[in-house]
Formats: sequence, structure tokens, C-alpha cells
Amino acid sequence: MSSNNHQGILVTASKVHVPFKAELLQAINDPRFQKRAPHLVGILATKKEDARSYAERACEQIGINFELRLVGQAREGMDGAGVGIGVEEAILEANEDDDVDGIMVYYPIYGDRQDQYLQSVVSPVKDVEGLNHQFLFNLYHNIRFISPLTLRPVPGAIETGDQPPEGTVKSILPCTPLAIVKVLEHVGVYNSLIPYGDRARGKVITVINRSEVVGRPLAALLANDGARVFSVDITGIVEFSKRPSKQSKYNPHHVINPTDLSLEEVLGRSDVVISAVPSQSYKVPTAQLKDGCVCVNVAGEKNFEADVRERASIYVPSVGVMTIAMLQRNLLRLCKYQDMVKEATQAKSA
Amino acid sequence: MSSNNHQGILVTASKVHVPFKAELLQAINDPRFQKRAPHLVGILATKKEDARSYAERACEQIGINFELRLVGQAREGMDGAGVGIGVEEAILEANEDDDVDGIMVYYPIYGDRQDQYLQSVVSPVKDVEGLNHQFLFNLYHNIRFISPLTLRPVPGAIETGDQPPEGTVKSILPCTPLAIVKVLEHVGVYNSLIPYGDRARGKVITVINRSEVVGRPLAALLANDGARVFSVDITGIVEFSKRPSKQSKYNPHHVINPTDLSLEEVLGRSDVVISAVPSQSYKVPTAQLKDGCVCVNVAGEKNFEADVRERASIYVPSVGVMTIAMLQRNLLRLCKYQDMVKEATQAKSA
Repeated sequence: MSSNNHQGILVTASKVHVPFKAELLQAINDPRFQKRAPHLVGILATKKEDARSYAERACEQIGINFELRLVGQAREGMDGAGVGIGVEEAILEANEDDDVDGIMVYYPIYGDRQDQYLQSVVSPVKDVEGLNHQFLFNLYHNIRFISPLTLRPVPGAIETGDQPPEGTVKSILPCTPLAIVKVLEHVGVYNSLIPYGDRARGKVITVINRSEVVGRPLAALLANDGARVFSVDITGIVEFSKRPSKQSKYNPHHVINPTDLSLEEVLGRSDVVISAVPSQSYKVPTAQLKDGCVCVNVAGEKNFEADVRERASIYVPSVGVMTIAMLQRNLLRLCKYQDMVKEATQAKSA
Repeated sequence: MSSNNHQGILVTASKVHVPFKAELLQAINDPRFQKRAPHLVGILATKKEDARSYAERACEQIGINFELRLVGQAREGMDGAGVGIGVEEAILEANEDDDVDGIMVYYPIYGDRQDQYLQSVVSPVKDVEGLNHQFLFNLYHNIRFISPLTLRPVPGAIETGDQPPEGTVKSILPCTPLAIVKVLEHVGVYNSLIPYGDRARGKVITVINRSEVVGRPLAALLANDGARVFSVDITGIVEFSKRPSKQSKYNPHHVINPTDLSLEEVLGRSDVVISAVPSQSYKVPTAQLKDGCVCVNVAGEKNFEADVRERASIYVPSVGVMTIAMLQRNLLRLCKYQDMVKEATQAKSA
């Protein structure tokens, strides 16, 4: 049984979720939400039965009014319908409906750039997934605090920590990358002794996947927090690291540079390895991992070999529960931002 | 020589270009441009030598001040640099530079969704390519006239033809799809006897390619103008057609529906076939074309067989010249929109 002594520990997202669930339950106790429960609309355009019940159940537990709207292939008797038919109209309808507080769309629909077009069709004030262009732009440029009216930084607002300066609110971050950051905070990769904004400093992190939904925003978030990040995809490896950019007037944020290191070399020096490859066959070779590293599997499929804990000191097999929690947190925040927008509009017209 | 009698005619984009060039030369005679020539910045991040000189020469001929800015791999001694390094910073710099009137970016850079992210980083008021999300949204929803300040329709503005109602300007259309529409107008596919907005009515058009840069906006433009469009890509064929959409408060615009027709069947009933497949090996089979159809090749490669004019009554082998002309036209328009924004800002602060 000696090999078991070397086995890293297993950390589930449900464990990480506990304080976030408590925080959500407390937040929803606000009179604002007691009067009318937050209303989240999920738009399903494809035949993905499993996705339905999960988000619905998670929202019920918290007290969020979740409504699934079916379009295209997701509708009964519409098996033969084209992919994505009606989804843009459904988003626009929800955008314009004052009774809807948040919108999530089940991607992939087209699986390509048309999905990205749809992400920006969702009204930012209802964008619980944080995938609208403006929110991604803020993330890439390390713009953490924004005006709830313009979604852009407020000139002259002075940042002193993790709380928004006067007149600003937190920008909305995409759920999955944010969920991963929360998991890394929980397992101690983020060091809370270091000042806010640099808490991943000193850590080398490999992120396998560079999509605009998970991998690139995640690599940027981690590098903006001070980590040295190797971003891996089929086109190669690039390095994200935080350095003051001479060409930008924004906050210090990551720069991207090419690297000559191979995957084996980056894995060998990585304190953390995060994999989000949507493939049954892709596996990160355990033998190439640095001993004692932290491994996080983000894909629906298992991207790590069965013996990953022989090398990893901590292994997180899934982050799904935390992704939904971050989506719920985004929803409650956006409800408050919407109130601020309404107040500002009323004050203007008064 | 009898087979020659059946040969369709060859129409070059240079021929179509003649009146547009004259119009551009006249427009640039405006005192506004005589004081300071319009300044277009081209951002090149990859090693694509041929692209450089072409746009530069075309702008010189018209009197546009074209400046090429090299970043990443395009810079001397930067052969080993990662793809796309510095391109976002270059766009932001040009966005903020009052001396720059228009920005074009040489795509593909990443060839994926990251390119689409960059398209929306370009400030809409300088977006000569018309690829910003807001302009694409307007196109898809058949929103032709917008406020120069919000880029959205002006409530209550009444449309009476192809001229913008009071307080509005024309939305900016992406260059390549717009160039193709102009070619189709030239060759008589658009019928000017029919009221504006429906001039492609009655025509069946196949568009091979459904990218967010060429194929989908083109299919939408043609369907919004009344055509029945079959949009073909590797995932299948869908039909774009104009019908009042019950779910939209916007102008009547296209709806998309699945079709059971095969490529051979849609080609056989198409009055117009437009192909934009970036592949040497892809060929539209001449034998499947409807006799007397119009064929337009948009790709850099030849997507039609050498004998295409045995069936086609008109063949347009390339639209590149017209794409640049539309880009130049967009630039001159955006200069005027920028003036309107400045005037509105000054009036507000006065």
C-alpha cells in the first residue's frame, strides 16, 4: 500500500462550492430579491438533454427562477430543424423583456464564429456568462472595475484593493475561467498574503486550450494576477506574463510572447496544469508532470490519466458545480447593476 | 468555333470599378479632404508581402494617405515572433489617434475566434471593413440607417428609399459582401425597376461559404434584398429568405431554414452561384450549373472549372478591386460620421 502514501488528494468542486453557496443564499435574502426572485432564462437550441436539468436544479436550490426556453432542434417535433434556428430572436426577446434578469445560452450551437456573434448579441446587463465582447475586453486589459452605465472604466477612479472604487462596480468575468480561479484560490495556488492583483505571482501554470470562452480568458486572468502562464493549443505554445505594457494606457496586464519550450518542458516546470480539451482521447502524460503539482480537469472528458495523483499533490476532476455558482453570482450582481442603470435613467428624466 | 458562341462573357471587377472610382475621386475633392487627406492605417501582423503594395497603390491612386504599420511577424528581424504579437495594442493606438481616420487589419492572423475578437476591438467609427459586431448586427437585422452617434436605428425615422432619413446615416457594410452586391447590380441580377430593398426578388442564389466575414453576411444581404439564398458550407445547406419575422421588432429581414436539397439540386436551380472557398482543390462542377447562370468567384483560388463559361452566361473571376473600392468608400463615409460625432460633442459642451 506504499504507493497510496504518495497519492495526491482529490478535491471536488462541491467542496469548493460550500462557502459560495452560503454566500449566494445570503445574497438572495436581500429584500430586492425577496420581492421578486431573480429570473434567469436559459436558451437551448440543440438536443442536449443533460444540460437542462442540471442548471435548473442548481438554481432551484438557491431560489433563482430558472426558465428554459427551447428553440430550433430543442423543440419537440423539430428534430429536422436546422441548427440554431430562432436562437438569435430568442436572445433579442429576452434582452428586451424587463421581466428577465439574466440570459444564458447553451453553447456550442454552431461551434464556430457564429456562436461568438451570438455572445455579443446578449445584452451586457443580462450577460451572466460574461462572454460579451466588452466584458472579454475588460478581462484581457485587466480592467476590474467599471461604470455600470458604460461598462468601461471610470476615469480617475482610484483602485485600492479588491473592492470597487466609488461609482464603479466589478466587471463581469466569464463563468468557467472564474470558477477555475476560485478553485485555485481554494487549493492555495493563490497566496492571500500577497497584495490583491498579484496573488498568483511566482506560480508557473500550463493551460491546455486557448479558446475565446475558456483557455485564453483563463490564461489572461492568471497572468494578470501575476502567474507565468503557458498557453497550449494545437497551433503551439505561447507564454502569457504580466509586464507593464508601454503601448497601453490601461492597467498593467499580461503580454503574450512566443516560447521555444515544448509541451514536455512546460509541463515539467508547471506548478499547476489545467486542461480543457473536449476529446476522449487527449491525455496529459502523468510521467511529464512536475512532482507535487496541482491538476485541474475542466473538460467534460477526462484529460488526465488514471494515475495522475501519483505525481499531482492535488487533483480536481471537474469544475462544473463552481461554473454554475459563478453564473449565479454574476446574475445577482447584474440585477444590482440593472437597478443602478434604472436609477440613473430615472434621475436623468426627473 | 461554334462552341465559342455558347461561351458566357467575362466581366472583370475592374470594369465594375469604373464608376465607383470616378465617384471616389469626386468625393475626395470635398474641401474637408483637400485640407487633410483621409488617413487609413493598415495593420499587418503576418508575413503577407503581396497584400501590402496592393492596397497602398489603390489608395495612392485615389488620394488616400495609406500607412502600413507592421507588428509581430511582419516586422523585420521578427521572423521568430509569435503570431499576432502586438496587433491588439496597434489597433488601440490607432483607435485613440485623432490623426487616424480608418483602420484595416490584415486577416487572417489567428484564423479563428481571436480574429473576431480583434474585429470588435477596432473602434466602429474607424471600422472601414465593417466587421465590428454592431455593424454585422445591423446587417443581419436589415438595419440600413443608423444614428452616427449610437450606431443604432433612430426611433421614428421613416425610410422612404435608399437615402438616409433625417438624422441618420447609412450603416457600414463589410467590404467583400458589399463588393459582391455591387458586382451583381452591375451584371443585372439586381433589378432597379423593383423598389429599393427588394431588388434581388425572384432570384435564386447559391453562396458557397458561410464564414462571419464573407458568406453569412453576403447570404443575409442578398436575402434581405429579396433573393432566395442557399448557403452552403461543410456542415450542410440552409436557406435564407426574406419573410416578416413575428419575433423581431426590426425591419423585415431574412429568416434561416433548413433545406433537404442537395448541392447538385441547389446549383441546378440557381440563377447566381457565388463561391468563396479558400482551397485550390475545391471546384464547382460546371455540369451541375443551370444554363445561363451568373458565376462569381470570390476566393483567391479558382473555385470554378476552366469550362465554367460553357454554362454560365456571365463569369466574374475576382472581386478584389471592388473590395478595396468599398473599403475606400467606407473610409470617406466614416470621416463624415466622425465629423458629425465631433460636432455633436462640441454642441453639447458649448
